Amino acid sequence: MRNIKLVLQYDGSRYHGWQRQPNGITIQQTLEAAISAVTGEEITLYGCGRTDAGVHAKGYVCNFFTASRFDASRFMYAINSRLPDDIRCMSSCEVSADFDSRWATSKTYTYLIHNAPLPDVFLNKRAWHYRHELDIDAMKKAAESFLGEHDFIGFASSGFTVKTTVRTIYSLDVTQEGDVVRIDVCGNGFLYNMVRIIAGTLCFCGAGRIDWHDMPDIIASCDRQRAGITAPADGLYLSEVVY
Amino acid sequence: MRNIKLVLQYDGSRYHGWQRQPNGITIQQTLEAAISAVTGEEITLYGCGRTDAGVHAKGYVCNFFTASRFDASRFMYAINSRLPDDIRCMSSCEVSADFDSRWATSKTYTYLIHNAPLPDVFLNKRAWHYRHELDIDAMKKAAESFLGEHDFIGFASSGFTVKTTVRTIYSLDVTQEGDVVRIDVCGNGFLYNMVRIIAGTLCFCGAGRIDWHDMPDIIASCDRQRAGITAPADGLYLSEVVY
Repeated sequence: MRNIKLVLQYDGSRYHGWQRQPNGITIQQTLEAAISAVTGEEITLYGCGRTDAGVHAKGYVCNFFTASRFDASRFMYAINSRLPDDIRCMSSCEVSADFDSRWATSKTYTYLIHNAPLPDVFLNKRAWHYRHELDIDAMKKAAESFLGEHDFIGFASSGFTVKTTVRTIYSLDVTQEGDVVRIDVCGNGFLYNMVRIIAGTLCFCGAGRIDWHDMPDIIASCDRQRAGITAPADGLYLSEVVY
Repeated sequence: MRNIKLVLQYDGSRYHGWQRQPNGITIQQTLEAAISAVTGEEITLYGCGRTDAGVHAKGYVCNFFTASRFDASRFMYAINSRLPDDIRCMSSCEVSADFDSRWATSKTYTYLIHNAPLPDVFLNKRAWHYRHELDIDAMKKAAESFLGEHDFIGFASSGFTVKTTVRTIYSLDVTQEGDVVRIDVCGNGFLYNMVRIIAGTLCFCGAGRIDWHDMPDIIASCDRQRAGITAPADGLYLSEVVY
């Protein structure tokens, strides 16, 4: 069996997240159906993580095993011709048998906040519309406290099972272009809803609802109540996965 | 009766254009229904022009007459609460009785071309995906020939009835940001499909299928066959209307 790695882009608006499930259409099942139509086999996809309903991706990585002799680099075109417009395969290649999408060394997520009095129809379901004016400098200062290794249990929603809640954040950048505030966060892994809670917390710092000086304390407290809200799924993009 | 002017933003992907029609949902009917629900009257909207199916707007202007005493500047909020997410009223104000949206002195359209080997799901239905590499300088040079007053009958689709096919183009700019090529054109009026044919022609100049040196000649020829194709509706935005 050959092991094929795919890199995907998708607009998650219409989907119930990545993972196959009984209720609602998902990215995984849509893609498995497209690949099966190409190879004529029953296909199981291994993804780099579960993205929630409404979350987008610009560089999602997954892999599957196939007996097909189809040219690996041409797989993407064959698969794309069978996919809806909101899921695109950006590359396909053959990798060694031991490559597993689930074991990334780092992931980068991007979160977009549309900070303006009125919503923008072209950012609908693509960014979090936040009306209150944001102090970008306060957000940048708050972001510094997240860098490095911390127990992030205070930045996780319940309903997960993991061995440890300690994660390392390599970079967390806040930038502004026009009325869009962009948060890029790179780390060795993220707990359930962790990026959305970081985005919600940085937003509260920018709006003055949390004092950025308190961030080291809030992180150390491991208390979910002291962090900000879970920002909506619409603004979240899985940008890059490194192995 | 009071005359209320609205400025709209809409994502035209789901709609059969601006104008009310028997088959398919349109922007006009959706908006008329929302306004009627606010005022309790039968409302007729006068729009600044017909946009085709799939065309978007960032600054569409329309007006309607009402006997309602509703605060003019608050109309937008009341209407927005009754509109789907892909149509937004950006401003509302009372204007003099003789204001008519149809009689603009200039209009600006924007056309977006996504120039890359692979499509981008986030530009799906929002830009024309054109794979062939474009020479932006050739497009800029070709654009200069359009400036000023010309008979643009060679840049119109059939099926229109107008007194004259002479129009004046005030500015036509081609810019590039990353893999998106943007065309902004401002003029005193446009024939049916004229902006899309200009976009298709500039694109052909950029791809080397039309020599930009020939543009003055092609325009003067008034021959539709010599211009480029009609670029798809997806990339077109009505940006600004001036009175």
